[in-house]
Amino acid sequence: MDIDEPIYLVGGDLTTFIGKGHPDFDTDGDNPSLENHLTEAIHGSLEETGVEPDAIERGYIGNFAAECFANQGHMGALAARAHEAFRGKPFQRVEGACASGGLAVINAVDSLQLGHDVVLAAGAEVQTTVSAREGAAYLARAAHWETERDLDDFTFPAMFARRAKHYKEKYGVTDEDIGHVTAKAYANANKNPYAHMREVEVSYEDAITESDQNFCFLGNEELKPHLKTLECSQVTDGAASVVLATESGLDKLAVDPSDCVQVTSYGWSTSPLGDVDDYTELNNTKQAVQEAYNDATVKPSDVDVAEVHDCFAVTELLMYEALGFANPGEGAQLAESGETQLDGETPVNTGGGLIGFGHPVGATGVKQVLEIYRQMKGLCGDYQIPETPDVGLTANMGGDDRTTVSFVLENIA
Amino acid sequence: MDIDEPIYLVGGDLTTFIGKGHPDFDTDGDNPSLENHLTEAIHGSLEETGVEPDAIERGYIGNFAAECFANQGHMGALAARAHEAFRGKPFQRVEGACASGGLAVINAVDSLQLGHDVVLAAGAEVQTTVSAREGAAYLARAAHWETERDLDDFTFPAMFARRAKHYKEKYGVTDEDIGHVTAKAYANANKNPYAHMREVEVSYEDAITESDQNFCFLGNEELKPHLKTLECSQVTDGAASVVLATESGLDKLAVDPSDCVQVTSYGWSTSPLGDVDDYTELNNTKQAVQEAYNDATVKPSDVDVAEVHDCFAVTELLMYEALGFANPGEGAQLAESGETQLDGETPVNTGGGLIGFGHPVGATGVKQVLEIYRQMKGLCGDYQIPETPDVGLTANMGGDDRTTVSFVLENIA
Repeated sequence: MDIDEPIYLVGGDLTTFIGKGHPDFDTDGDNPSLENHLTEAIHGSLEETGVEPDAIERGYIGNFAAECFANQGHMGALAARAHEAFRGKPFQRVEGACASGGLAVINAVDSLQLGHDVVLAAGAEVQTTVSAREGAAYLARAAHWETERDLDDFTFPAMFARRAKHYKEKYGVTDEDIGHVTAKAYANANKNPYAHMREVEVSYEDAITESDQNFCFLGNEELKPHLKTLECSQVTDGAASVVLATESGLDKLAVDPSDCVQVTSYGWSTSPLGDVDDYTELNNTKQAVQEAYNDATVKPSDVDVAEVHDCFAVTELLMYEALGFANPGEGAQLAESGETQLDGETPVNTGGGLIGFGHPVGATGVKQVLEIYRQMKGLCGDYQIPETPDVGLTANMGGDDRTTVSFVLENIA
Repeated sequence: MDIDEPIYLVGGDLTTFIGKGHPDFDTDGDNPSLENHLTEAIHGSLEETGVEPDAIERGYIGNFAAECFANQGHMGALAARAHEAFRGKPFQRVEGACASGGLAVINAVDSLQLGHDVVLAAGAEVQTTVSAREGAAYLARAAHWETERDLDDFTFPAMFARRAKHYKEKYGVTDEDIGHVTAKAYANANKNPYAHMREVEVSYEDAITESDQNFCFLGNEELKPHLKTLECSQVTDGAASVVLATESGLDKLAVDPSDCVQVTSYGWSTSPLGDVDDYTELNNTKQAVQEAYNDATVKPSDVDVAEVHDCFAVTELLMYEALGFANPGEGAQLAESGETQLDGETPVNTGGGLIGFGHPVGATGVKQVLEIYRQMKGLCGDYQIPETPDVGLTANMGGDDRTTVSFVLENIA
């Protein structure tokens, strides 16, 4: 989508991403609730940006499956509880599986293009309320349940193990190649105090070696060898929230554009559930990213920093190729080269990605644009990349490459 | 929302609304699936309007709780299965509890205002997959689960029994007064071949008399006397789909505006879950409807036909008041006067409403605008109202008056 009037990302906030029995909380799984996360992120985004709640004209909330994980739907009206000034304002939830957060940002951008001045986009998910196996069943609702659920108890891990299998077979890629993604994710997360894996250290050797910490867990015998636990994104609780505004919105807020990041374009593509034409390519993502590039008049080599949907380690390699960072089959070489590491040419998933930072499903797409903003504004602390990026790209994917949202963001000096 | 460029409802379609063990299907509850309903409605809407699938630029799908009822989320990508031409187009699900369908239409209107020409809005829900009690728990996710779920096993019926109790006590309204709504709903549904209650006859006497067919079922002893089964909306499976277009969209489709209905304005308001300030008024709905009136420069007396959210019989009375059709406390007199019946001054819920037509949650808001279109175009058969309406109004409500979507629609002669 070509964005006519300039749209600005004013800033935002996120909660510390956490997992089951995190030492910061008690070990009975009594983590903060969905509403705790969502409210904290919204409040934080208002405080960080100095925006008064009353200035918010609309709110879009990304969430995938709170009806299952938290017995809660109607999250627009849940978010309206965050501040008395929100009463009566239009808020809604949007959903596109793991791309729900990206969709929240798209809807916010659309409503700004439509004439609103200041809009909130937030995303939240809690997943530690049930066992990993039960959670996997909830997440399988992002696939075509009727025909795909039975692939494995862990449906999505199996779907991406299938991609890994085909990808490895087609291009001769090895688990050792894929391990570079895992090791980078943990290394970056270890520098990020918000990350789910901030205290778990995983070396490259750990990542490629089967162990008690890194084992094949699928029930599907054909796919089992193609995925180990450390290659998976995390079952995470968390939320993120951003404030977006038009030029006249910035005037109202008395915010200088140079404190913002411009949302230059977005791409959004949806493909039918259960109908993947090639396991070795993310074709739906490719289309969304191409739309974002075209509408921003930006090419892959212009990108200085990227956030991509590494739901599994192999997915990041497929993402490199869908984004045009590497030719088909050469994603692993790019990972190995170090160019996507913090000090590389094009750092990717600087805060740890879905594997290291964590993956609270509905929050992820919002967190991605916030991460680009934070890198551009030098707010990333120990994982701040050396050169301030001018151009950033995100790719947020729902299901097995069935809904993708991609943004081009540009820094305003 | 003031709509600048004219937006047209080109037409649409819906599936036959059905309940558990409907005689048209087998009694094991083996009704058509969520996808069957959604696909049939989408196909029907394309056939009815003569719109080629390829002309659809975006799709918005309203659904509340398919993750629970049908183990299915990611309904944008589910809908993309309906036609090969949808592959790669932007589709998403939107959710605002029972107002999810209305939100799908709002998002479609927004995207047309944004520059698209032809957009699809559909809604679907299946609820007959589980028992009524289990379904009530799923629907309670539209309330603030943590603080409101325990009101009753049947949370929403109890919430509206609470409204009935307060309303009756404040204004001296009786169950006999409320019975007029129930009787009208069934009478209208009996003329409507798509209605869930097309074959169930309920006289006014039946509606006001406790019986095996009409009993108080709540567990909450204080609220139990204030709601009987026949006063409830139905647990229904169904879907509805409409095509909307701009003027240039109509040109592309070679559709004459006179075959369309204009979407003149909408109102959209959200209030915090669990924070109802007055049980005897629908204040959130009042705000949304007022916005729709103001932006269309229409007043209550201009409305020729209306679709309102009669989730329970008392709600229709509260709706009359929120819409300005009756003064506070005088909704019952309006119902008794016959003015909202098919041959009255302002027919309301001509096809039977949520009580008679049925309430497949995510479909309802889409069905409402489609019903106004069908009345305006003389397509309602036995329940066609005598005078072709010029101005129509809808009010689609989520939760206990927490999200409301209202449209003003105008006929084009």
